[in-house]
Amino acid sequence: MFPPTTGLPFDDMRALVARMPAADADAVARVRARDATLTKPAGSLGRLEEIVEWLAAWQGRAPPAVNRPLVAVFAGNHGVAAQGVSAYPAAVTRQMVDNFAAGGAAINQLARVAGAELRVMALSLDEPTADFTVTPAMTEAAFLDAVTAGYDDVSDAVDLVVLGEMGIGNTTAAAALAGALFGGGARFAGLGTGVDDDGLARKRTAIETALARHADVLDDPLRIAAALGGRELAAILGACLAARHKRIPVLIDGMVSTASVAPLQALRADALDHTLAGHMSAEAGHRLLLQELELKPLLDLGMRLGEGSGAAVAVSVLRAALACHTGMATFEEAHVSDKET
Amino acid sequence: MFPPTTGLPFDDMRALVARMPAADADAVARVRARDATLTKPAGSLGRLEEIVEWLAAWQGRAPPAVNRPLVAVFAGNHGVAAQGVSAYPAAVTRQMVDNFAAGGAAINQLARVAGAELRVMALSLDEPTADFTVTPAMTEAAFLDAVTAGYDDVSDAVDLVVLGEMGIGNTTAAAALAGALFGGGARFAGLGTGVDDDGLARKRTAIETALARHADVLDDPLRIAAALGGRELAAILGACLAARHKRIPVLIDGMVSTASVAPLQALRADALDHTLAGHMSAEAGHRLLLQELELKPLLDLGMRLGEGSGAAVAVSVLRAALACHTGMATFEEAHVSDKET
Repeated sequence: MFPPTTGLPFDDMRALVARMPAADADAVARVRARDATLTKPAGSLGRLEEIVEWLAAWQGRAPPAVNRPLVAVFAGNHGVAAQGVSAYPAAVTRQMVDNFAAGGAAINQLARVAGAELRVMALSLDEPTADFTVTPAMTEAAFLDAVTAGYDDVSDAVDLVVLGEMGIGNTTAAAALAGALFGGGARFAGLGTGVDDDGLARKRTAIETALARHADVLDDPLRIAAALGGRELAAILGACLAARHKRIPVLIDGMVSTASVAPLQALRADALDHTLAGHMSAEAGHRLLLQELELKPLLDLGMRLGEGSGAAVAVSVLRAALACHTGMATFEEAHVSDKET
Repeated sequence: MFPPTTGLPFDDMRALVARMPAADADAVARVRARDATLTKPAGSLGRLEEIVEWLAAWQGRAPPAVNRPLVAVFAGNHGVAAQGVSAYPAAVTRQMVDNFAAGGAAINQLARVAGAELRVMALSLDEPTADFTVTPAMTEAAFLDAVTAGYDDVSDAVDLVVLGEMGIGNTTAAAALAGALFGGGARFAGLGTGVDDDGLARKRTAIETALARHADVLDDPLRIAAALGGRELAAILGACLAARHKRIPVLIDGMVSTASVAPLQALRADALDHTLAGHMSAEAGHRLLLQELELKPLLDLGMRLGEGSGAAVAVSVLRAALACHTGMATFEEAHVSDKET
């Protein structure tokens, strides 16, 4: 499991990042070799072909498979919600966790359609993080506890992880975190669950205040994540790191999910190579954030719900890709003439 | 079924276009009313919400459902293939129809993932259409036979139709047809299955020659479809028209599928309102064609295979949309607080 949290926890995390496994080039080569024999013009399945190569690279097998996908949703509460940055009261985080448990949320339906297990982890909802316009959101110890909880939530029995979240106020935390990593102040702020103009102005002010307040941590991605993130964001980071070590490809979701894992890329340029962006959120900052991370989303359906919802829809695209790769006949098997050249 | 093919067939078709049923506004209103009660911020499921409204509008029921989707693939051969416009020999059309029957093509796998029935209709493969650089591809009677075959292929027992095709040379026909409808010569020509530069030049020349040859039909969308199309394109047009009359929403696929139905919109501006573009093909002309038709594709995965493959992947997005609409709890049921305003 995760290294002990005593000693130098950030250094332990950095060590885990430093020894991330690489892609399995041999598995990719075997996927490409089979793909070239299938009854279709070369390249004509576009991103479906890339997806199979990516799954093979990070599962380390050819053909890859998605038999046990997991949608892991992490929930947290945020002190910054007191700044009036959300259209919904903070109590909704707990209410939605109950709704997940009862099967009534969007992600319950979408996980079912995707054939995925849904697991929800509520992280100390009764103890919101501190208001980061005043003080760091979390101590290093609290941050690492949340990272560890996320890390341990990813079992090596699963073969794909979708990382989602719930937390009133967390698009403010995500935008602050992204602003701290990539600069440009409050440019990653968007309407979240649907704030009005005044709410957006409060959100921008909170972010600018927080970036000024925590100027001393801006050179350290992990301290940024502790000071400006939230427990569910930290857990997503931990889960993403675990997935890399356990050879499990990851679909990241919208603004919050993406901001959560961004510190990993700041630590190591190839740290997110085992992830794909499932969906580009309508949340304004997400496009900018994906550009910064050089991630090209699979879907663009105007969703902006969080919960892992957009990435859960993308699981069906992965299933389509795998079905073609494993089920199609070869030119030889089907007696189809190959290209005239 | 389709009106008799004696008398004035084009006039019969025009009459069918003229009496197309309208959207069911009441079903849409009921979908919107339920959507507003579901445990998510209003609008946060983006196009998933629009999809459910669209299905309700054209199925004429709320909630709508996709229980019996059909992937209808039409295959034809093209005289213009003799001009060297394809990377594959014309024999491949028949070989791929056999591959469909044996279950080995991409669309077999994608229809299965979509939970859809796959039906393939081969249209007189041993009698290619005439080379339209010389003479009209089809007589009016042959065109109407193919339209009727497509029309009759859509049973009112299905609740969604994906329209796909196979035909060596048919991206040349599609580009010629689009050029005739929307102007601009060979601008809709692309690489198809993967021609080289010389092949693309031959394709453009064939299209320009055909547009000049058939200048006398350019004011009549149906005569354009007969002179510059192909049997599978005509069948797709017929199937799309049947679906409208039988209250079955349609997912159109790539360049050829879209060009096939374009004459309907030229006849009547709202004729394609019961269709959604499932996927934007990597085939260069498709983006232009979708712009002309003001259709916004659901997916953009770089596919360019035809067969209905891109639209078949989009069926999973429809399933996700329906699952959310029918399965989610309301704010009241889940005791979740609504927006603070």
